Amino acid sequence: MAEEKKWVRLVTAKTPTNIAVIKYWGKRDEALILAINDSISVTLDPNHLCTTTTVAVSPAFQQDRMWLNGKEISLAGDRYQNCLREIRKRACDVEEEDKGIKIAKKDWESLHVHIASYNNFPTAAGLASSAAGLACLAKLMNVKEDQGQLSAIARQGSGSACRSLYGGFVKWIMGNSEDGSDSLAVQVTDEKHWDDLVILIAVVSSRQKETSSTSGMRESVETSLLLKHRAQEIVPKRIIQMEEAIKTKDFPAFARLACADSNQFHAVCLDTTPPIFYMNDTSHRIISIVEKWNLAEGTPQVAYTFDAGPNAVLIARDRKAASLLLQRMLFYFPPGAGADLNSYVLGDESILQDAGIKEMKDVESLPYPPELKDTNSIQKYAGDVSYFICTRPGQGPVVLSDESQALLNPNTGLPK
Amino acid sequence: MAEEKKWVRLVTAKTPTNIAVIKYWGKRDEALILAINDSISVTLDPNHLCTTTTVAVSPAFQQDRMWLNGKEISLAGDRYQNCLREIRKRACDVEEEDKGIKIAKKDWESLHVHIASYNNFPTAAGLASSAAGLACLAKLMNVKEDQGQLSAIARQGSGSACRSLYGGFVKWIMGNSEDGSDSLAVQVTDEKHWDDLVILIAVVSSRQKETSSTSGMRESVETSLLLKHRAQEIVPKRIIQMEEAIKTKDFPAFARLACADSNQFHAVCLDTTPPIFYMNDTSHRIISIVEKWNLAEGTPQVAYTFDAGPNAVLIARDRKAASLLLQRMLFYFPPGAGADLNSYVLGDESILQDAGIKEMKDVESLPYPPELKDTNSIQKYAGDVSYFICTRPGQGPVVLSDESQALLNPNTGLPK
Repeated sequence: MAEEKKWVRLVTAKTPTNIAVIKYWGKRDEALILAINDSISVTLDPNHLCTTTTVAVSPAFQQDRMWLNGKEISLAGDRYQNCLREIRKRACDVEEEDKGIKIAKKDWESLHVHIASYNNFPTAAGLASSAAGLACLAKLMNVKEDQGQLSAIARQGSGSACRSLYGGFVKWIMGNSEDGSDSLAVQVTDEKHWDDLVILIAVVSSRQKETSSTSGMRESVETSLLLKHRAQEIVPKRIIQMEEAIKTKDFPAFARLACADSNQFHAVCLDTTPPIFYMNDTSHRIISIVEKWNLAEGTPQVAYTFDAGPNAVLIARDRKAASLLLQRMLFYFPPGAGADLNSYVLGDESILQDAGIKEMKDVESLPYPPELKDTNSIQKYAGDVSYFICTRPGQGPVVLSDESQALLNPNTGLPK
Repeated sequence: MAEEKKWVRLVTAKTPTNIAVIKYWGKRDEALILAINDSISVTLDPNHLCTTTTVAVSPAFQQDRMWLNGKEISLAGDRYQNCLREIRKRACDVEEEDKGIKIAKKDWESLHVHIASYNNFPTAAGLASSAAGLACLAKLMNVKEDQGQLSAIARQGSGSACRSLYGGFVKWIMGNSEDGSDSLAVQVTDEKHWDDLVILIAVVSSRQKETSSTSGMRESVETSLLLKHRAQEIVPKRIIQMEEAIKTKDFPAFARLACADSNQFHAVCLDTTPPIFYMNDTSHRIISIVEKWNLAEGTPQVAYTFDAGPNAVLIARDRKAASLLLQRMLFYFPPGAGADLNSYVLGDESILQDAGIKEMKDVESLPYPPELKDTNSIQKYAGDVSYFICTRPGQGPVVLSDESQALLNPNTGLPK
């Protein structure tokens, strides 16, 4: 190992975030992060929502360090330490002749790493960090394990992040073994399988401080009398039905299951002592708008799901439904005073074009949704949504070969 | 029977409303109104919240008629017809010599009745009507059945109303028989047993149209996968624990059970397809305020419970806790612009005096609740509560001997 040379080896990757359509809520092992039920998620297109991570190794580094969104954070927590220990164990020989880098398997124990992560949408993202770090470290260290085995390590950083190591629809199998070795993610279908789907995220304005999902699910496990019944009796059946709905692209079944499971997760939060409220009045209104429209159409056009916060993730059956959904959302939730359309609808702007909306006056002149019978009692809620993101199911982590996208300086290994 | 004389016989009674502390949600028989679980309620003092009902019978009446809050309503519905049929079956001979009234048991089949009911607090009351009518009709018709048997008839008008035939704490036993004859109310303890308790109702402003409890519970029975588990496995244990807590006046156990059961009822509503939201952001805030205070005190000062709407019913352990509660509520939820204190805090005004609040400026100068550590982030919600009602546990129906309180004219049998 050429310690005298002070080289820096870098790997940069873009890792997606994911949203569960059958929810994970409750651990059977807090340290290993083992779930009390299987869960299924859809990976969101990293072109719109992703974490970019650069990891670096150099004999010049004195300690492991990490920067999140430009700010250094401590790696002292158990979760970081578990992930780093597990991935180091699996590191292999690395050689980059042109840079004079040669690292033997045993050297990894004494080498330190630098990690820099950046979420492109701070409010709505945040899930993917540990998956992003893991994907990069595995590449950096020439780890031979497959994605499933890596997901079992990522899981120890953040449970739901393990589902971000694949694109498309992903199942996190809770597993049975006590050491967690069989608690890992598998791909249900890739992102090309069901490419009609369009996803609209409503980032909801909120004045409330939210309960973290880690402490929330611990309190639910300890106090909710409904959670155990859900995990043992209800979710196993839904997992089978949801896999079937995804494989056969059965949107009505998919929507029914996703909405019911989101609502049941929030029901369990409410059944917790003290109760946990993640959805607010705006979340409730979005559900009511979607339910009313789906009912009027006779078959679901849109599924909704909410994680540990008030933001709505709306999954439209196709582009047509997505543009009608966006019209409805902008009708009820126009931007607050002074906002412009470009900062109000982000991501895939082609949906906005499909919806025939080019400027603010098009929002103002949106017609009443036809499912509304009593147009006298209509209320609009300007400012109650902060912004929307249009996206779709997407691929898993991608290693970037373009070094200019690295977040760490290739000479110093420090943030650019 | 002296038909030629055209006499009118009147009975007037004041019947309380009640609030469940272990909730009724779900019927096993829609027609007979049989519940899927036992429930327990506390009867509210009729001096503050009640229904006054006058029933009249006269050979001059051409048909059964009813007026609710001054407006004639149809008696054609099954629920009214079932109640009237069942009570008529049990009518007995009546004789009032001074008025020349003599009605034989068999005559009741052909005699018509007039019923007038008036709720003194329209928004928060409304539960008690069928119990009120029943109590009056039973007296009018000289029905010999006891309160329990009457409650089984009142139940067929409105399930939860059957609990209003007693004061204090009341259990509605779901019963087992198919004809509903053993589905009736029994008194757990009378209103004098636990007379420390003080009840504060927050009538919450709402722009939402609510799902009726009749259709809401039907949808929950049909679609919620959690409701059956609640009714069969959870509520039976809670009923035993709640009866014990009431009998031993164990406020911490009472509060824990009442809050958990209210939250679980709303959890089941959320687990319904489509989901039902009765609580809104204001309801959630009231819960958070109470939970935070209870936690800071180390033992519960106040229990909360919410029915099929956003209004909070807060049960304080004693007068001292009630005055501290009222201070907190007025601190966070001062009246909206232009409101005066007299129309903002109704009912038992002595609690307001205990809290040291005589005028609006006393509300404005209320100190920060000491359990708040971070006083920088405090938000107040003026106008989010419409008004408060201070009350307490109270007695069951009372027949009024003073004819001047009758709602029907003693000569014509029509509304005064």
